[in-house]
Amino acid sequence: MYRSHTCGELRKTHIGTKVILSGWVQKVRDKGFVVWIDLRDRYGITQLVFDEQRTTATLLSEGRKLGREFVIQIHGEVIERTSKNPQLSTGDIEILVSELKVLNQSLLPPFTIEDETDGGTDLRMKYRYLDIRRNPVKNNLIFRSKVAMEVRKYLSDEGFIEVETPYLIKSTPEGARDFVVPSRMNQGQFYALPQSPQTFKQLLMIGGLDKYFQIVKCFRDEDLRADRQPEFTQIDCEMAFVEQEDVLNAFEGLTRHLLKEIRGIEVEKFPRMTYDEAMRIYGNDKPDIRFDMRFGELNAVARHKDFQVFNSAELVVGIAVPGGATLTRKEIDGLTNWLRRPQIGAKGMVYVRCNEDGSFKSSVDKFYDQEDLKKWAEATQAKAGDLICILSGETMSTRAQLSALRMEMAERLGLRNPEEFAPLWVIDFPLLEKDEETGDYHAMHHPFTSPKPGQLALLDTDPDAVRANAYDLVLNGNEIGGGSIRIHDKKVQASMFRHLGFTEEEARAQFGFLMDAFQYGAPPHGGIAFGLDRLVAILGGQETIRDFIAFPKNNSGRDVMIDAPAPIDEAQLEELNLRLVDNEE
Amino acid sequence: MYRSHTCGELRKTHIGTKVILSGWVQKVRDKGFVVWIDLRDRYGITQLVFDEQRTTATLLSEGRKLGREFVIQIHGEVIERTSKNPQLSTGDIEILVSELKVLNQSLLPPFTIEDETDGGTDLRMKYRYLDIRRNPVKNNLIFRSKVAMEVRKYLSDEGFIEVETPYLIKSTPEGARDFVVPSRMNQGQFYALPQSPQTFKQLLMIGGLDKYFQIVKCFRDEDLRADRQPEFTQIDCEMAFVEQEDVLNAFEGLTRHLLKEIRGIEVEKFPRMTYDEAMRIYGNDKPDIRFDMRFGELNAVARHKDFQVFNSAELVVGIAVPGGATLTRKEIDGLTNWLRRPQIGAKGMVYVRCNEDGSFKSSVDKFYDQEDLKKWAEATQAKAGDLICILSGETMSTRAQLSALRMEMAERLGLRNPEEFAPLWVIDFPLLEKDEETGDYHAMHHPFTSPKPGQLALLDTDPDAVRANAYDLVLNGNEIGGGSIRIHDKKVQASMFRHLGFTEEEARAQFGFLMDAFQYGAPPHGGIAFGLDRLVAILGGQETIRDFIAFPKNNSGRDVMIDAPAPIDEAQLEELNLRLVDNEE
Repeated sequence: MYRSHTCGELRKTHIGTKVILSGWVQKVRDKGFVVWIDLRDRYGITQLVFDEQRTTATLLSEGRKLGREFVIQIHGEVIERTSKNPQLSTGDIEILVSELKVLNQSLLPPFTIEDETDGGTDLRMKYRYLDIRRNPVKNNLIFRSKVAMEVRKYLSDEGFIEVETPYLIKSTPEGARDFVVPSRMNQGQFYALPQSPQTFKQLLMIGGLDKYFQIVKCFRDEDLRADRQPEFTQIDCEMAFVEQEDVLNAFEGLTRHLLKEIRGIEVEKFPRMTYDEAMRIYGNDKPDIRFDMRFGELNAVARHKDFQVFNSAELVVGIAVPGGATLTRKEIDGLTNWLRRPQIGAKGMVYVRCNEDGSFKSSVDKFYDQEDLKKWAEATQAKAGDLICILSGETMSTRAQLSALRMEMAERLGLRNPEEFAPLWVIDFPLLEKDEETGDYHAMHHPFTSPKPGQLALLDTDPDAVRANAYDLVLNGNEIGGGSIRIHDKKVQASMFRHLGFTEEEARAQFGFLMDAFQYGAPPHGGIAFGLDRLVAILGGQETIRDFIAFPKNNSGRDVMIDAPAPIDEAQLEELNLRLVDNEE
Repeated sequence: MYRSHTCGELRKTHIGTKVILSGWVQKVRDKGFVVWIDLRDRYGITQLVFDEQRTTATLLSEGRKLGREFVIQIHGEVIERTSKNPQLSTGDIEILVSELKVLNQSLLPPFTIEDETDGGTDLRMKYRYLDIRRNPVKNNLIFRSKVAMEVRKYLSDEGFIEVETPYLIKSTPEGARDFVVPSRMNQGQFYALPQSPQTFKQLLMIGGLDKYFQIVKCFRDEDLRADRQPEFTQIDCEMAFVEQEDVLNAFEGLTRHLLKEIRGIEVEKFPRMTYDEAMRIYGNDKPDIRFDMRFGELNAVARHKDFQVFNSAELVVGIAVPGGATLTRKEIDGLTNWLRRPQIGAKGMVYVRCNEDGSFKSSVDKFYDQEDLKKWAEATQAKAGDLICILSGETMSTRAQLSALRMEMAERLGLRNPEEFAPLWVIDFPLLEKDEETGDYHAMHHPFTSPKPGQLALLDTDPDAVRANAYDLVLNGNEIGGGSIRIHDKKVQASMFRHLGFTEEEARAQFGFLMDAFQYGAPPHGGIAFGLDRLVAILGGQETIRDFIAFPKNNSGRDVMIDAPAPIDEAQLEELNLRLVDNEE
């Protein structure tokens, strides 16, 4: 037996008990006549004591020689500390050591195993097993495990069945790029790793399982943006015989349960907003509604003077930054420069200071009078002391720029409180999205999303206008889940594929099994999928997912710890009937 | 709203209630003046009634036209049945239909959606979504979900943390063949799909997580034997600061919990047996101990006469088949032929009938007298009425043949009761296994398994004799789990790799990260992995795993429903810098 107790459980009530503990040496404090050691395991830290009076000279000298991260086992007696440590749950006691065994030695770790470490990201990833010993990472992994367990408990109690769908499936050129897996037994053929279990969960609904969920790894071979992973985890869900309202209620229930169980927060009914509203009011389909700064559209009150910038703009739109009137000219210039960076791409910014005396001072006073500016303040709901920031130009890009400014100002003003949770349903997404370059339409969600009832005919006449039974769940400005009511009619699905530019043969080759399945009594169905990595990070009050993943990959898709991917044996390639193409060819 | 109730919940107490139901048409019984329809969903079957007196003519005629597996929604009132069906939980009531809506039509399904279907395996797999509508398959999937949930609940309550380990890892030529995944972002390099998360769970122990589990898909590119899948699911577990005893107790607890929660069976402390004992007594390292027929070794009492077959054999060994004395000569010849088939490979069989009067009649009466045969009966614990079956030859193969005979006789005698559960720990496995062809040694479990304390030196002198801290959990003759205490010392691991024929460079290239990790305070650790597919099948009282997997692959590794694997676009290959090798080359 390596231990009678963990390093986190001994209390005053244990005084006098003989115990065995095992763990890592966190710290050695050598005062000559006495040596204290902080012994650490997953559960906490317990102080060990060796001293000249009560410990043998040999043991004292052995204790003194222990290095950081040595793994040891000790026997000893729980005694009361003379100077207690109220910071530590075990801070009332210490262990007078009577036996010491070194279970394993340790080289000096390449960074400190402390909450605040001196290790940079690269080093921490290379030695991730040491990084995981640090409380922040360890606690994140425990937190993730707890969230996943609560999801499973809640959904199981609600009658959902977790079904494992296959990982070795079929490649579909539609959507993002697949990772493929060459088949040895079927030479020249490939499996693909799933980007999501979408078609399988629909087949499970056709199979009558009624309520399905799965916490499942998905794969996308994308050029990685920051905070994206080639493999990621979804909470994948589907229900039969449901309308949009049923799905929203079911997963609002799940989210409310998580907020309550995990964060102790009770949230009222989640607000809902259409996609069009979200774009109009926040310039963004995943608005952070923890704070206001709603967009005020100014076309009606800003295009009647000689200011050509506004007059020629498709959209003039502003936000009122609370308390922003105190910003200096230099600070405002800084903001304008920030907006002009290529990542944002605004041409410039017009501003209006709302003075405390009710007057206005703007950067376009040459063109507009106080009466005009008052109307702008009304439209943006600006109060005395605010700064109105106004952008103009083509509608979509201007909204995106102003949305970026809104988020930046909220960040600077400390309005994005990670302990506050503001969920929001965004509904009625467009069914299709136009590729501005090619003019082709893509499915905004995926090709299985159903158009709103009665809008099918619109596909031919005004595809941009068609709205879908599609919805996103947004939490604090992040899309944590998205889903839709699916098509369950073969004809509608065929028409959808046609509008997405599939030939009948292509549709058949890729999704024939699904179209076939629709012929054998497919029930109405719909669902949702949550990104677990992000959900966990946000519930944990953080925004980067990497520290909630045990062994993440870097931006080149590499695992720097195990050094993967890596070349494989020539023999392995041969068995697969494959050859690497030389770069020269 | 598609339904107010499911098809499984209406009872007498609901009589008079107006309800909405949705589901599939299971059966239409048309008696002219009245039409009954069985409406089915996941939860059950409810009878609908349309009749001339209480239903409009239009509705009656619409009801009459419904086909099997049509998806419909009905409004109606719950009424009492005149002739009740006690077989059905809803058998006291029926629904008098007032509105009918066809939600989707169905072609005639290619096989009947009944508990006993007329569909063969291939057809059922191609239309798996229809197969899943059948109770036996649907219930298996629900059962699997329940087992997995109980595993998670139990382990979480015991302080285990579920951690997701990566799927895109590194190929290691050791062990079975990996599925590989070409990397586009790292040209010429490949990921591999994990055969198990073995090294990652060890790194989590080094990372201080203390108790880990994961229900996780694993992948092996093997030539598929019956009832093997290229992707399969493991309950993967690891603990730090444990000895073998701790691991056995922890997972005996899990298994006992499952037997109780899932099957309502209380099992006492699991028996344990060493690998050597299991081989000696049952000729098998995963003995089914629901029944006896223990091996009796007869070398001492059968090699003293002129029967050369026995005298030249390394091992003479028999079992007493209960009640087998009544087998006719012809039946015994049949058994001998069964043993001689190439799959078993025995040369022949000697038998002894134990007559009710205490006398013996054998096929070798020419050589042995009653006194000899009495000793054989004692060694095999044969009683009057039994048949002693004796095989001889080289030890390992003879044991394997007799073990096959023992299982066959148990099957024929109905001793393998699927409702009875007999768990068994088999411990002290050999560390190494000799490849008889090449003379090389392989790790019997895997190269991270630790030898028994003090046996490390034996590796050089007598590798066959080295026993490992390795154990299997056997249930009803199936290995449901296996594990070991791992090596946590860098030097021992290096020595182990050397004995397995790795050069230092190979060990470094493949497992350098693990060897490095061992240098930074690796704690003693060990674990186990259960095969979930098999565990679920056995708990479900069945032996084939395929019907407990939603979308299984066939013996060529194909998913015949989605038709995967499949060729991929030339463009996809090009992006990966790969080319198919023509078969002629």
